[in-house]
Amino acid sequence: MNRVVKTLLPVIVVHGGASVIPIQFIKEKEQGAKLAALEGYKILKKGGSCIDAVVKAVSCLEDNPMFNAGRGSVLNEAGGVEMHALVMRGDTCGVGGVLCIQHARNPVQVAKIILDESPHCLLTGEAGLKMARKHNLPEESLKYFITDHAKSMFENYDKYKKAVDGIINSKQNELTDEHDTVGAVALDYHGNLACATSSGGFTMQKVGRVSDSPIVGSGGYADNESGKKNKLTGQKPGRMVQRV
Amino acid sequence: MNRVVKTLLPVIVVHGGASVIPIQFIKEKEQGAKLAALEGYKILKKGGSCIDAVVKAVSCLEDNPMFNAGRGSVLNEAGGVEMHALVMRGDTCGVGGVLCIQHARNPVQVAKIILDESPHCLLTGEAGLKMARKHNLPEESLKYFITDHAKSMFENYDKYKKAVDGIINSKQNELTDEHDTVGAVALDYHGNLACATSSGGFTMQKVGRVSDSPIVGSGGYADNESGKKNKLTGQKPGRMVQRV
Repeated sequence: MNRVVKTLLPVIVVHGGASVIPIQFIKEKEQGAKLAALEGYKILKKGGSCIDAVVKAVSCLEDNPMFNAGRGSVLNEAGGVEMHALVMRGDTCGVGGVLCIQHARNPVQVAKIILDESPHCLLTGEAGLKMARKHNLPEESLKYFITDHAKSMFENYDKYKKAVDGIINSKQNELTDEHDTVGAVALDYHGNLACATSSGGFTMQKVGRVSDSPIVGSGGYADNESGKKNKLTGQKPGRMVQRV
Repeated sequence: MNRVVKTLLPVIVVHGGASVIPIQFIKEKEQGAKLAALEGYKILKKGGSCIDAVVKAVSCLEDNPMFNAGRGSVLNEAGGVEMHALVMRGDTCGVGGVLCIQHARNPVQVAKIILDESPHCLLTGEAGLKMARKHNLPEESLKYFITDHAKSMFENYDKYKKAVDGIINSKQNELTDEHDTVGAVALDYHGNLACATSSGGFTMQKVGRVSDSPIVGSGGYADNESGKKNKLTGQKPGRMVQRV
């Protein structure tokens, strides 16, 4: 059941990945995240849906080479790019996810098509691309996705690995590089919630490694009706979570 | 921490899929499930690990054309077979999963190799097959997997669909056919838990549809240390769950 809560202001929250950001990238990353949030917010402000808002915001992050999703994705052990994305809507708890997709400029838009049209909630990259082609979603060659920064992380993997180990061992001073998923969560005027996630995985991952990002409950979760009932209104607050 | 509970008897529980079984298959299915449980139990009785036991039991079900896993898997919309498997060990909570794999005679054994050797916990079919080949795991042509029964369900999809709709709508009297995942859970002499799952998905599924069977927490879960502490011993009972 949709909750029409007219007094609610729409909200969107965007993130560009959880890690220590090299100082030279902080400004551009901040700007990129702000732009993505604003683009999503424009949709919400016009009364648009939270689903469209999170897809728009994550598409912005995917288009921005500063983030590890879409263009800017890190390289796997073969020097290729395999991407993962998820969209979940809180009104129906419907999910669309795609894993190990190549060439799609915006994996999150492929996930949205899977959410809208597939009888299944999670598809492999090839199956996702097949659906995307029916909708003429833009495709790019491998070259488009590879940034100098991703190439440098690939070529300097030992140093990068030290950074990842640093995260695992919580030795913050060893961190020298960034990685991880991007995502957005939103609440619209209609009281609906949605989340979206997109990731290029991590440098030197095996070909065919499936990220947790496109998996419901791992990469993200949105449910209008979860949580404890409000004793006065009888409404549940809803919940949306996003892995960072 | 492994719990050595010498007074414990090892246990294995096996299932061959949750649905109404056509009367003509009941005996063979029962025998198949018993055989699988006994094969797994033999390992446990000798002091072997719960992981080896569940892999053995599920391999038996995969080899048995009566079940929708390995040989006997149902056909997708293209008349092909894509299989999914998961193994999880409760001592480390380590997981190995493979999705949309073709040709591997025993997808659950591929999942076990991923558990043991991959730095990742979930791989696509092609990546899983690459690892399986290094271990000379047996492969088969598509013909091996396709049974007359799976072919008949594919050719009579409308009738089969009615059966699936029947399950969804809980109209038991409309059920005429079986489907679904197989699996096993086990507890060994060392007090360790494990689970394993294998599935051919469902008839006429889209190519590239990812089942929930190979996904940790969806297809199965095993954890030696979960649950409430025993007030006398301080031990936690452990938990293993298996989707059926």
